[in-house]
Amino acid sequence: MNIQDYLNKLGQSARIASRSMSATTRGDKDKALEAIATELIVAKDQLLDANQRDIQAAIENGIESALLDRLELNQARIEAMAEGCRQVAALPDPVGEISELSYRPSGIQVGRMRVPLGVIGIVYESRPNVTIDAAALCLKSGNATILRGGSEAIHSNRAIAEIIAQSLASSGLNPHSIQLVETTDREAVGQMISMPEYIDVIIPRGGKGLIERISNNAKVPVIKHLDGICHVYLDAEADLKKAFDIAINSKTHRYGVCNAMETLLVHQALASELLPNLASKYSSLDVELRGCPKTVDILADFTVGQATEEDWQTEYLAPILSIRVVEDYQQAVDHIQQYSSAHTESIVTENITTGRKFLAEVDSSSVMVNASTRFADGFEYGLGAEIGISTDKLHARGPVGLEGLTSQKYVVLGDGHIR
Amino acid sequence: MNIQDYLNKLGQSARIASRSMSATTRGDKDKALEAIATELIVAKDQLLDANQRDIQAAIENGIESALLDRLELNQARIEAMAEGCRQVAALPDPVGEISELSYRPSGIQVGRMRVPLGVIGIVYESRPNVTIDAAALCLKSGNATILRGGSEAIHSNRAIAEIIAQSLASSGLNPHSIQLVETTDREAVGQMISMPEYIDVIIPRGGKGLIERISNNAKVPVIKHLDGICHVYLDAEADLKKAFDIAINSKTHRYGVCNAMETLLVHQALASELLPNLASKYSSLDVELRGCPKTVDILADFTVGQATEEDWQTEYLAPILSIRVVEDYQQAVDHIQQYSSAHTESIVTENITTGRKFLAEVDSSSVMVNASTRFADGFEYGLGAEIGISTDKLHARGPVGLEGLTSQKYVVLGDGHIR
Repeated sequence: MNIQDYLNKLGQSARIASRSMSATTRGDKDKALEAIATELIVAKDQLLDANQRDIQAAIENGIESALLDRLELNQARIEAMAEGCRQVAALPDPVGEISELSYRPSGIQVGRMRVPLGVIGIVYESRPNVTIDAAALCLKSGNATILRGGSEAIHSNRAIAEIIAQSLASSGLNPHSIQLVETTDREAVGQMISMPEYIDVIIPRGGKGLIERISNNAKVPVIKHLDGICHVYLDAEADLKKAFDIAINSKTHRYGVCNAMETLLVHQALASELLPNLASKYSSLDVELRGCPKTVDILADFTVGQATEEDWQTEYLAPILSIRVVEDYQQAVDHIQQYSSAHTESIVTENITTGRKFLAEVDSSSVMVNASTRFADGFEYGLGAEIGISTDKLHARGPVGLEGLTSQKYVVLGDGHIR
Repeated sequence: MNIQDYLNKLGQSARIASRSMSATTRGDKDKALEAIATELIVAKDQLLDANQRDIQAAIENGIESALLDRLELNQARIEAMAEGCRQVAALPDPVGEISELSYRPSGIQVGRMRVPLGVIGIVYESRPNVTIDAAALCLKSGNATILRGGSEAIHSNRAIAEIIAQSLASSGLNPHSIQLVETTDREAVGQMISMPEYIDVIIPRGGKGLIERISNNAKVPVIKHLDGICHVYLDAEADLKKAFDIAINSKTHRYGVCNAMETLLVHQALASELLPNLASKYSSLDVELRGCPKTVDILADFTVGQATEEDWQTEYLAPILSIRVVEDYQQAVDHIQQYSSAHTESIVTENITTGRKFLAEVDSSSVMVNASTRFADGFEYGLGAEIGISTDKLHARGPVGLEGLTSQKYVVLGDGHIR
């Protein structure tokens, strides 16, 4: 069977499965999630064996150590995957929720019912635990799923897919409600994103290159997360302790994450007092600093590079920080409008009017007052789990949990009403 | 200036205008809408003159009479356009609404704020009143708009655009917040749907051909409304009076509308009793009937054509109805799943379990129990006005009002909170 026929077959099966999935009760979905969690632990030796085959192949191919770490499974990671399934089982079921049901002057009652999107295609890179995370969220939200993982993780993913298939079968769910693309042929992704008749939405998870390639060519709607060039602005009326804590935490709590601060904007009124303290702390944590001319002046006692135009446009994902001293609030917001990737921005200020303006004017998926950008996360927001963070404007924006995997249709109740 | 440069210029101006529009207060937006309403009446003679030029050209080009009717403006239609602006002004402003604001265990407060989408491109066909309808809804929802009307209406649209421009200027709003594409070159649409850097979403309004062409080629997200192949299913446990009224009203209240019924499904248990009464009424209203073999048998005393496979797939938008007798509920739902365009379906039944199943299982933008499909409409649902009816699953589904022209971002309030 060629790739196109193979993907069409998966798509047709998924479409059929999505119909029964949408009507599956919460109890049955939770039972299947518990079964997956149990089976992951039962079959963990086979899973570790399969993972070792991927690891060996990766080492032979000279893979980078960071990628190798993402690829690797161990006892703790498998337990975390199982625990993740149980956490999703414990979340409320969004499907079928009817809201805003009210009577209209005509006498009909109109409301909105939350329903699954249908079939979700997930395209991701090396981490095999995404296979379980994505499958669990899509299952709980009543969708059918087609998973396409990275070729480096193919043996691990096949082992996980088998665990899922057994659990679906033992729970009486349609075995095609979660399917793995078993081929590593790159053409498979091109076919997945070209079949709107079978897939309702594609969610790519991975590097910017993957996501751009998919977005530019997809014939299916894409919920995408591009980069996170996040800013913190320390306003003239910032509390200095809060400013210090948030500037340090937003950058240094973790470096390789999309909600880490990449550029710090400091109002000129507090730059001379605050920047040396910050620079001292950043230096002690080995964070490389790149500043605008004023920053370089103020931090003459520190090693600070000259920030270039490219720095303002860069998501470092590393212990590097660009710093700009701004004249006023407006210059800070203008900088954000020009360079932000619309992921997360935070202002530190004690002035309520400035804080309200920032919340209204900054057009990012998360906008914060007096909080670290590191809070931009599905767990921290109470979504229970997230399948990604959307920097799109349509449909889901910011962390995407179960609700983002559903839509709302209108329901109308009458008693023989006509117009 | 070539088309590409011209559209890029409109796009850049719209992007800048969208920033000030998103922060424009409700009072200022409503004042601008009132100004447009007033100016439409003041300048109605110039508008009627411009419209006459379109009408003359259309007649010379031998346009169909239905299209000519859509193109024509008169005193009453201009007054209706002005009244539409005032109605939109009276609607609540969705922008800035913060919902679900609650404390998380970490101490941060997380909520969602409703914000404009940014820049909306509207591509539509001959009706010049769409220019005002779309402009009013986009303005009220805080978006900037680029309007591309049909070439037959270019003089009318230019006159309306001038009225809008004057009203924006006199209200102190950015004059680029509503812009008309002044060229009739078809290439302009191709360029509009290819500039995601300037346009956040495209809403096509018009025939299926236009919408398919745009959806297939757009690099910008599209909120689309394809066809409305709407079904009414008369269940075995239907109340016969309600069944009769809804079957007649859904088909005959208006023929050329997307929420009119195109196929009637009748449970075999009541077909013999109900169908002759219905056929008699349909015949008196000159509705042509096309039936499955059982329908033809039961209606042997009437003129009923044999429904073909193509009939089940057709949106007639005309006094034609296809009828199928089904064996049971499941066959009705299967028929709907196979042939529906996912716009609107209604069941007539007194059985609450069957009604609840239908609401849950039918995957259409509006699903009804004991009500005419003709209720699927923004005004009837209480949205105040609608820019179209979405048959998409992502973002807005069903009638799209002001809320569908906005998205929600996360807002986080802290007091120096760090992770």
